[in-house]
Amino acid sequence: MTCVFCKIASGELPTDFVFADDLVVAFRDIRPQAESHVLVVPKAHVESLWELEDPALAGAILGACAAVARSEGLSEGFRVITNAGAHGGQEVPHLHMHVVGGQPLGPMLTPPA
Amino acid sequence: MTCVFCKIASGELPTDFVFADDLVVAFRDIRPQAESHVLVVPKAHVESLWELEDPALAGAILGACAAVARSEGLSEGFRVITNAGAHGGQEVPHLHMHVVGGQPLGPMLTPPA
Repeated sequence: MTCVFCKIASGELPTDFVFADDLVVAFRDIRPQAESHVLVVPKAHVESLWELEDPALAGAILGACAAVARSEGLSEGFRVITNAGAHGGQEVPHLHMHVVGGQPLGPMLTPPA
Repeated sequence: MTCVFCKIASGELPTDFVFADDLVVAFRDIRPQAESHVLVVPKAHVESLWELEDPALAGAILGACAAVARSEGLSEGFRVITNAGAHGGQEVPHLHMHVVGGQPLGPMLTPPA
């Protein structure tokens, strides 16, 4: 097992979780791009949202994003993003949702250079 | 009922859906920011992800995003975004997920001006 997010989810790489349930873990991004930047990750290895077929897992993931926003106190607003594949700029090939907030987040998309 | 996304979901505002099931509709953004830009919207009025509590609805929403990415043929990658509240820059106060792709999408976040 070489996937870093699988190692985090399994406990092989000790990590402080801000949220965890049977299906999902959430932890702080090691390179935060906002005041609050948490990753919500399914324990099961799913490469990206493209491969996600299980509605119960989908519900656990998006529900965890909402729970993290609330537990992080992002009452002034936040953004949830998932990147898939090359066009999305996905960096780790294990599905993860970015929950970012704590400050105004600027435009949703910027034209590629 | 004054919410424009409620009117679209109910059929009061005729709209071409690219996906629909019992809980969710999806349609093209009228101001697309990418080659493919589809909004996935719950039929029920939920203001933002902050208010989303129902795991079945959460699963339907995120599952529909994956289904839309596949039906749009975004095999080279895509991004799914939801904005909540002022910090997120949410423009319509009815939960919606942007499914964008068809081209490289650039950085996930840009520093606010």
